[in-house]
Amino acid sequence: MSQWKQIQQLQIKYQEQVGYLYDDNFPMDIRQVLSNYIESQDWDTAANHESMATVLLSNLLSQLDRQCSQEQNFLQRHNLKFIYQQLQTKCKASPLLMAGVISSCLREERRIISTASIQEQGPLEKSMQN
Amino acid sequence: MSQWKQIQQLQIKYQEQVGYLYDDNFPMDIRQVLSNYIESQDWDTAANHESMATVLLSNLLSQLDRQCSQEQNFLQRHNLKFIYQQLQTKCKASPLLMAGVISSCLREERRIISTASIQEQGPLEKSMQN
Repeated sequence: MSQWKQIQQLQIKYQEQVGYLYDDNFPMDIRQVLSNYIESQDWDTAANHESMATVLLSNLLSQLDRQCSQEQNFLQRHNLKFIYQQLQTKCKASPLLMAGVISSCLREERRIISTASIQEQGPLEKSMQN
Repeated sequence: MSQWKQIQQLQIKYQEQVGYLYDDNFPMDIRQVLSNYIESQDWDTAANHESMATVLLSNLLSQLDRQCSQEQNFLQRHNLKFIYQQLQTKCKASPLLMAGVISSCLREERRIISTASIQEQGPLEKSMQN
């Protein structure tokens, strides 16, 4: 199961923690719409190599642009277009920073999923592990 | 048919004109989620009367808050919550300005709908009107 699908199944208190990771810098709409692409790239390495960050972000923008043009829903198309324009500027200005933001978000998501998984284990399972 | 529903049925070129009206100041998500409330209030008058603007915006925020808490979809709930927090600050700081923005958006939407309606009439209908 993809990381993003696992997040959809968390309790609301954990989803809220994930929510704090996403704002105008990296809108959650992109995380959802391009979840497969985002999860299949090595953002940790890209965050330290500008040429790699530039390529990964350029691909991300192309895919987002394609999503915009295919989107039938008026509100969703409007939002994706607005996000695309804002993200295009940020990716050109500071690709390393942007790759770093994505890398951090994915890492923090994994941490929250892991915490939720431990917390949701009952006392019996915990004692059996000890 | 509500004004917002009429906009959903416009050609994409007219929908794009409507899209230019909405940005972070008055996100389109609110226009859609609270379309009935927004269209049933007198924002023209509120834009010139601070106490009325304050009441209308306070009701708008209450309804948005309720929508947030009822929303089941993780992404949609996150976006509405983010918009709510941003809008709350703007409404408190300058209610007249905010009421004016809503009033202008509704007026411009009507102008675009009217233009689209005239443009979509064929030459025969036009000549019969003359």
